[in-house]
Amino acid sequence: MRPIKRLIQLDEALSLALARARPVDRTEELLILQSVGRIAAEDVISTLNVPPFSRSSMDGYAVRATDTLGASRMKPITLRRKEVLYAGAIPRKPVGRDECTEIATGAMLPKGADSVVMVEDTEADGETVRVFKPVHRGENISKKGEDIMPRTKVISKGDFLNPSKVGALAAIGHDRVKVYAKPLVAVVPTGNEIAELGAKLEPGQVYNINSYTLAGAIQANGGDVRLSKIVSDSLGDLDKVVRENRDCDVLVFSGGSSVGERDIMLDVLEKSGEVVFHGVAIKPGKPTLFGVIGRQLLFGMPGYPTACLSNAYILLGPVLRKMARLPDAPPSFVDARMANRVVSTTGRTQFLTVRLEGELAYPAFKESGAITSMAFADGYVIIPADIDLIEKDERVRVFLL
Amino acid sequence: MRPIKRLIQLDEALSLALARARPVDRTEELLILQSVGRIAAEDVISTLNVPPFSRSSMDGYAVRATDTLGASRMKPITLRRKEVLYAGAIPRKPVGRDECTEIATGAMLPKGADSVVMVEDTEADGETVRVFKPVHRGENISKKGEDIMPRTKVISKGDFLNPSKVGALAAIGHDRVKVYAKPLVAVVPTGNEIAELGAKLEPGQVYNINSYTLAGAIQANGGDVRLSKIVSDSLGDLDKVVRENRDCDVLVFSGGSSVGERDIMLDVLEKSGEVVFHGVAIKPGKPTLFGVIGRQLLFGMPGYPTACLSNAYILLGPVLRKMARLPDAPPSFVDARMANRVVSTTGRTQFLTVRLEGELAYPAFKESGAITSMAFADGYVIIPADIDLIEKDERVRVFLL
Repeated sequence: MRPIKRLIQLDEALSLALARARPVDRTEELLILQSVGRIAAEDVISTLNVPPFSRSSMDGYAVRATDTLGASRMKPITLRRKEVLYAGAIPRKPVGRDECTEIATGAMLPKGADSVVMVEDTEADGETVRVFKPVHRGENISKKGEDIMPRTKVISKGDFLNPSKVGALAAIGHDRVKVYAKPLVAVVPTGNEIAELGAKLEPGQVYNINSYTLAGAIQANGGDVRLSKIVSDSLGDLDKVVRENRDCDVLVFSGGSSVGERDIMLDVLEKSGEVVFHGVAIKPGKPTLFGVIGRQLLFGMPGYPTACLSNAYILLGPVLRKMARLPDAPPSFVDARMANRVVSTTGRTQFLTVRLEGELAYPAFKESGAITSMAFADGYVIIPADIDLIEKDERVRVFLL
Repeated sequence: MRPIKRLIQLDEALSLALARARPVDRTEELLILQSVGRIAAEDVISTLNVPPFSRSSMDGYAVRATDTLGASRMKPITLRRKEVLYAGAIPRKPVGRDECTEIATGAMLPKGADSVVMVEDTEADGETVRVFKPVHRGENISKKGEDIMPRTKVISKGDFLNPSKVGALAAIGHDRVKVYAKPLVAVVPTGNEIAELGAKLEPGQVYNINSYTLAGAIQANGGDVRLSKIVSDSLGDLDKVVRENRDCDVLVFSGGSSVGERDIMLDVLEKSGEVVFHGVAIKPGKPTLFGVIGRQLLFGMPGYPTACLSNAYILLGPVLRKMARLPDAPPSFVDARMANRVVSTTGRTQFLTVRLEGELAYPAFKESGAITSMAFADGYVIIPADIDLIEKDERVRVFLL
């Protein structure tokens, strides 16, 4: 058996992993409808004016501003209505002196008019329109190109495409956009004791949990998942699965990174690539392996479900976000008080799952082999390596699961 | 033209809309791999023990705890190794007095053994194993059923399925789960001036923006989107699209809720259903219509893109989350200082888009017709109805777009 030689602190592990993570350069073209949440891989420059014509921004009457000078409730000004314009209609008659055109929001401004009087400030009687308030030139109109002009850069390479940015693409008539591909992540469960869901459990076997929890965490952090079948703990089989997934940006193995004689992920990595770290001062999740094979990153996660998933949250997640060029996930937490005194191991960061009852956080951790340590918890507290005790009633930040 | 009679405050509008929103009762069965982020529509009860057998939680030696009594570095106890167990292997030999079995993490405990000595506390020489530390009964083992027992409720109806809950389903061998269906939302752009993306713009036309921004906001809040083609502002066509989307939980129209003579959404709603409110004291987004047709909710959003999308964030989003049984979205905000003095309309809540430069928030709002009011912004500040001024340098909370 090969004991882990040196544990590194979580911060250092994360820095080392992030330093090896490169943003994915592959791109793909998507319909804008599918592009929200993705990262633009191109600048998009407008060739149009938006709006393509000057239009009314109110329901009212298109006028020449000078004609409304001095108008008031007491001394209204009277204009003659030339036509009625709904949105989408094309004005046929110019607006001359003491004339107006009834106009809907969004409709094209007729020639001659330079402003719009709001309907609230008028009273109409057939074709006679009384105006109670003056407008200045340009009032209540949106000028051609006011929103977007030709040569405006609507989207910059690297922009996060939120709904309004997608709206800007639509505004200039684009229904597609080039985005960066998501990092492709192979998820490989290892171990002769692991059985696939749906199969009958043989003696000594347990069901494959980690592929499904990892997949969820990978998708939530912008990755695409390729699920591998269960691989035995043999050098040949592990080598083969590495070769079969050469096109992936990241390989995530679960199981096989501990100190047992048959935990041979380390051999695979030493043979084909470079070990960056093996062993992190975190609880649970200590026997975590990270390295690179060429341009690929390789994580060897502990086989125990809670250890595997907590590592996915705190190590794999940030690495994938960097590769996917995504901003940090918005922190989702509540502040609570610890219901019991909690003793933590000095020198190791602890990922302590808790249940929330009102303001109180109850430790929910059973053991790292128990998925219910996490599945029956509401969140987790990160206890730093230099803290060895949380007193009862001490305030803690609970990150929600 | 029919002016909006009475504006209601945003809070009241949201309460009225939420009061009409009912959680969707339809269910569907999903592969657990697709179920993260969804809401369980059934209790899931285990029929198995997890783990299905007592197993070692460490790499080491399975022993009888009594045999290790008094062991120390100075006075080690010597045991005879009976066999070697990797995970997945089945023990063939019981552990008797002064005997042990080398055992990997996760492997089944052999008969006779009641605890495991960690490998770090031993030294082996062939079949002779020296133990340096005593263990107590049950130490370093996970008992059969310790994680999940038969009749344990693994998932409760209404649970939000995060990766660890999906892991608990996998632990008991389930590869599928029944979840609530997403609310189905028809998105209907209206107006004769709207052209579909890809089409050539005719004079007086602008491209359809709102379908795409609404779709993004709907998906982000747990809804499924059905995009409708562009519908003209005629009672017949609007009636027809309402009938065609009878199976939707929500209808969202954009355009056609303002005060123009041809804005006839109100007529449709008055004829077929009930108007709950028309006109919200918010800027932009005042001419917003909300009502019900039977069990369906209907939103009539302003046609102007920023007004339409800001309403989707603040009114439609919470309504959809209630229907989808989703928790509130984690707030994503930064605190900043306003770079300029901002005057707001008293009596109306203002949705003010801003660009962030370091700690400073610069107003980015042009007009509600301009999508770049939002697309070129980083976030927005909500100015309450009773605030009419934000001073330069005043602290504001910026919700990120």
